[in-house]
Amino acid sequence: MNANEKFIAAKAQVDEAAIAPLPNSRKIYVEGSRPDIRVPMREITQSDTPASFGAEPNPPIFVYDCSGPYTDPATKIDIRSGLPALRQRWIEERSDTEVLPGLSSEYGRQRAADKALDELRFPGLHRKPRRAKAGMNVTQMHYARRGIITPEMEYIAIRENLNREKYIESLRATGPRGQKMADMMLRQHPGQSFGASLPAVITPEFVRDEVARGRAIIPNNINHPESEPMIIGRNFLVKINANIGNSAVTSSISEEVDKMTWSIRWGGDTVMDLSTGKNIHETREWIIRNSPVPIGTVPIYQALEKVDGKAEELTWEIFRDTLIEQAEQGVDYFTIHAGVLLRYVPLTANRMTGIVSRGGSIMAKWCLAHHKESFLYTHFEDICEIMKAYDVAFSLGDGLRPGSIYDANDEAQLGELKTLGELTDIAWKHDVQVMIEGPGHVPLHMIRENMDLQLEQCKEAPFYTLGPLTTDIAPGYDHITSGIGAATIGWYGTAMLCYVTPKEHLGLPNKQDVKEGIITYKLAAHAADLAKGHPGAQIRDNALSKARFEFRWEDQFNLGLDPDKAKEFHDETLPKDSAKVAHFCSMCGPHFCSMKITQDVRDFAAQQGLDEAEALRKGMEVKAVEFVKSGAEVYRNV
Amino acid sequence: MNANEKFIAAKAQVDEAAIAPLPNSRKIYVEGSRPDIRVPMREITQSDTPASFGAEPNPPIFVYDCSGPYTDPATKIDIRSGLPALRQRWIEERSDTEVLPGLSSEYGRQRAADKALDELRFPGLHRKPRRAKAGMNVTQMHYARRGIITPEMEYIAIRENLNREKYIESLRATGPRGQKMADMMLRQHPGQSFGASLPAVITPEFVRDEVARGRAIIPNNINHPESEPMIIGRNFLVKINANIGNSAVTSSISEEVDKMTWSIRWGGDTVMDLSTGKNIHETREWIIRNSPVPIGTVPIYQALEKVDGKAEELTWEIFRDTLIEQAEQGVDYFTIHAGVLLRYVPLTANRMTGIVSRGGSIMAKWCLAHHKESFLYTHFEDICEIMKAYDVAFSLGDGLRPGSIYDANDEAQLGELKTLGELTDIAWKHDVQVMIEGPGHVPLHMIRENMDLQLEQCKEAPFYTLGPLTTDIAPGYDHITSGIGAATIGWYGTAMLCYVTPKEHLGLPNKQDVKEGIITYKLAAHAADLAKGHPGAQIRDNALSKARFEFRWEDQFNLGLDPDKAKEFHDETLPKDSAKVAHFCSMCGPHFCSMKITQDVRDFAAQQGLDEAEALRKGMEVKAVEFVKSGAEVYRNV
Repeated sequence: MNANEKFIAAKAQVDEAAIAPLPNSRKIYVEGSRPDIRVPMREITQSDTPASFGAEPNPPIFVYDCSGPYTDPATKIDIRSGLPALRQRWIEERSDTEVLPGLSSEYGRQRAADKALDELRFPGLHRKPRRAKAGMNVTQMHYARRGIITPEMEYIAIRENLNREKYIESLRATGPRGQKMADMMLRQHPGQSFGASLPAVITPEFVRDEVARGRAIIPNNINHPESEPMIIGRNFLVKINANIGNSAVTSSISEEVDKMTWSIRWGGDTVMDLSTGKNIHETREWIIRNSPVPIGTVPIYQALEKVDGKAEELTWEIFRDTLIEQAEQGVDYFTIHAGVLLRYVPLTANRMTGIVSRGGSIMAKWCLAHHKESFLYTHFEDICEIMKAYDVAFSLGDGLRPGSIYDANDEAQLGELKTLGELTDIAWKHDVQVMIEGPGHVPLHMIRENMDLQLEQCKEAPFYTLGPLTTDIAPGYDHITSGIGAATIGWYGTAMLCYVTPKEHLGLPNKQDVKEGIITYKLAAHAADLAKGHPGAQIRDNALSKARFEFRWEDQFNLGLDPDKAKEFHDETLPKDSAKVAHFCSMCGPHFCSMKITQDVRDFAAQQGLDEAEALRKGMEVKAVEFVKSGAEVYRNV
Repeated sequence: MNANEKFIAAKAQVDEAAIAPLPNSRKIYVEGSRPDIRVPMREITQSDTPASFGAEPNPPIFVYDCSGPYTDPATKIDIRSGLPALRQRWIEERSDTEVLPGLSSEYGRQRAADKALDELRFPGLHRKPRRAKAGMNVTQMHYARRGIITPEMEYIAIRENLNREKYIESLRATGPRGQKMADMMLRQHPGQSFGASLPAVITPEFVRDEVARGRAIIPNNINHPESEPMIIGRNFLVKINANIGNSAVTSSISEEVDKMTWSIRWGGDTVMDLSTGKNIHETREWIIRNSPVPIGTVPIYQALEKVDGKAEELTWEIFRDTLIEQAEQGVDYFTIHAGVLLRYVPLTANRMTGIVSRGGSIMAKWCLAHHKESFLYTHFEDICEIMKAYDVAFSLGDGLRPGSIYDANDEAQLGELKTLGELTDIAWKHDVQVMIEGPGHVPLHMIRENMDLQLEQCKEAPFYTLGPLTTDIAPGYDHITSGIGAATIGWYGTAMLCYVTPKEHLGLPNKQDVKEGIITYKLAAHAADLAKGHPGAQIRDNALSKARFEFRWEDQFNLGLDPDKAKEFHDETLPKDSAKVAHFCSMCGPHFCSMKITQDVRDFAAQQGLDEAEALRKGMEVKAVEFVKSGAEVYRNV
């Protein structure tokens, strides 16, 4: 759909590009302790090793799958109906929530009553909003601290283990060489985890304990029962977030829904809807109802629109109504810039780029205009009361994050971080889940300080950083300047990395930019998992490299983060199908293929009838002439 | 030109895309102690700060420029003639070389005599080859060790300082606020250099000393007098290399020349011609004669073609003739895999991906076939004799580098590194310049070990690494998986980063891939310079961020590494010229622009008549109502 075309609800359709399964992949579900705990994963099938490399089966591998029902051909997707409410029963079973007669927020009711919005309104919601019963606290942290393992926690434990046991079994079953193959495929370098605690197997109890301690959060609003539970914490897989959202200048509802389904297809673990343009409320409804991943927002953006962009006219009442409005739609985490204190604002005066956080600058302006601390800060406990009634998690915003290398790690930034640590304590007093947002623009060698201070001052509450960008000089490539910083800070302990797209600083990302940003951040997160030594992280690298070595081209493409692009690149130079089984590629041609030569060397050794290492040692003692003879036909004709 | 079209020398033309100056940029030359030392730099002009931000002039900044005469409109480029021989006189003045009657290599003479090659042969070379007089050593290291500062060394000192003095002067001359502005624009975070010695100003004597100690190399063959001197060493700016070259499967001479001029336009400091396809000799001649940057090769590739791809038939004589052939063409550094010893080969038997270096696998095969150490190793001193007669630098190849995360830092790799350290000593005994090639595929946390061992075992000879790739799972994005590793190892002390393009593992890079690889590595190298605290490195970041904050869009584009792409991205959403002066962009629209809000806050403070920090402090004491009044029109209409 074109951005300028009018969006009509009745005609809304899922983006076709988002629903086909990835090549050689199928969605599987691992069942938990009860039949309604069905944890999705993507199984990637591999072909057998070619005869010249030893003809062995390569069992399927399992990868984390954020794409929800979209890539499951057994599910019929209709974005006008939204996704099934898979957590509904779990929420109901806890008997601590009640169905409200209607929307609690004034603004929400106004929008609902506005006939002019009917044609673009999401038509599929027939549930009423739900809220904690009076005096009840429905956060996962609250349950965790009372020792309760929720279905969500069990779901997450299964999800994080990625069906590794099944993979190991399949490896062992590959024949007489099974155990040896398992040893090889599971081998992994010991990591350097900077104090993270990474158990070999994630148990539901471990999930509970981490949530209880505040070291991890499970963002899942009771009004977003469509979401598949996931966890953000240093001792779990590093996650990534994709930002979408329209602005006053560009984009439509259908574009934003398409960006969401596109994001999760490529691996976005959460999506933030940062819309600041028209119909923010309605856009969000479409996104949430169709999203299997947690949705985050920055409520102050919408509040500002309600006062026509006049920051100083913002009030607690308007903000409060906005929080309730969004909480009842199902937003899973709120970015709240409550750490922008009056005394920090002057510290930004000598910055190169001032305050670059939109929320931060809005609040700074409000503070100055009223010459007092913001309502986000003074009403922080009131906000906690709302959060715990719906289980919305805090993402405590870094409103004073540096917007340039020059401003990195300055007094303003670090002052605010300390305040975020204090606010974390208050939120935890209410059993409200918290993560902490981080920079921004930081040169490589100053990244560690950010992580260390955050761990200390925010007591290991999960860190959620934007990059950081490691240089300012590459507009158009800031997914990469920041991907470098993201991998680094992920290694040090950041739990979730907020993507940056190539359009950063230049324009709103389109679908292509979203994908580029996602893949960059998936690989950065994975580089971090490998460096931390996350159990099993190397399985996919090992499988892909084995496929590469054995010239299983299709498997190499399919095991990668972006099979479509890998195949497209390969086919640019060698488009024929026969090239997919060729024992060389366009880089080196047949004569120069080092992998081919290596295999020749090994084959020669193996002819001595010994196993590989032995054979090679033995082979070296054989007279040279024999090798030349046996290797006469080493370069096969293509 | 299409790859399948036949290349005809008479019709060869420079790629038009390579010769226009970049936007708002002009080539300047900084003169040294003699008029023929004219060091090129790119001057980027900036517009004045808009009135709303204080109306101040922004002096031009100077950036390193690898593009040679191509971007100088005063120079007429004709690739059939080649570039002017700017170092010719310096070489002649030393009186230690002689002009040979003709080519010394048998193969070179054969090719020259082959009439069938006439139509594709480079027509512009009228010089005879040059070689050291008998008993002479013409390496820059040899001069350096005898205390001689060559014009090349002075040229490099000027080049590395990037005309910083001139920029500082211009800042101070910007009016009454000059000194303050200079303080701001020159401010830089102290770095973390892991033991590097980075002087505030590079002197010719410092260059000499670093070369004498072997901590830096100046690759400039006396038969490549067209090259502009540059240096590779840990205490200088981090450099990057771009690989080009055809293969048996694809690409033509003109494509490779285009890739070279394209590479240097975007910042390739050296170019390696890795051709393994047809007409390797002639392709190289075209490239060298037109290249202002040092050219590296892997001579064993061509030697292997001479024996029809049969590694075991390679001999010292064939290899020696190839070295001389290429040295007399002007190759500036040779990758030589002399560290692949017989005893290391079995150590690769249990690897996931065996030997992935083409040169390494060729030599491994030769060693096994003959059951003895390779001629590269046994004739290493003979090779040194050739290198010092032309001043070709060694790039000691890591033939056993890991090709997968699994194989990182294994016994084979680290064994070879130790041998490379021993070979470094031998080369240095001959005053031959040396750099050391490094991996490959290495997870983030194991990169440091590579750098530490290299520094120790190779006694600070410059390290030159391929990435390293920090994960295997992203084919199609390996410029990024490796850009992460490259920035990291550059920070730790690597002197030159060999780029990886998006096509790595999948196909031969085209021009677009080359540019993507170059920009990725330029930003990685710059991130490393910033992290090391390289003097002046932050100037460009500061200038760009100031432009960004002041909504000087064109300046923001032009100060970046790729002005074309930045502008294109911006224009996708806001194509009008008026948007280039707009005080907002498509990301946030006018209401949400944090930079705009920040400036409003500052303006308000400044109205109190004080300077910025004071003003803001003061401003906060003013009654809120006044702020609201004065800020009533803060969001200007678009």
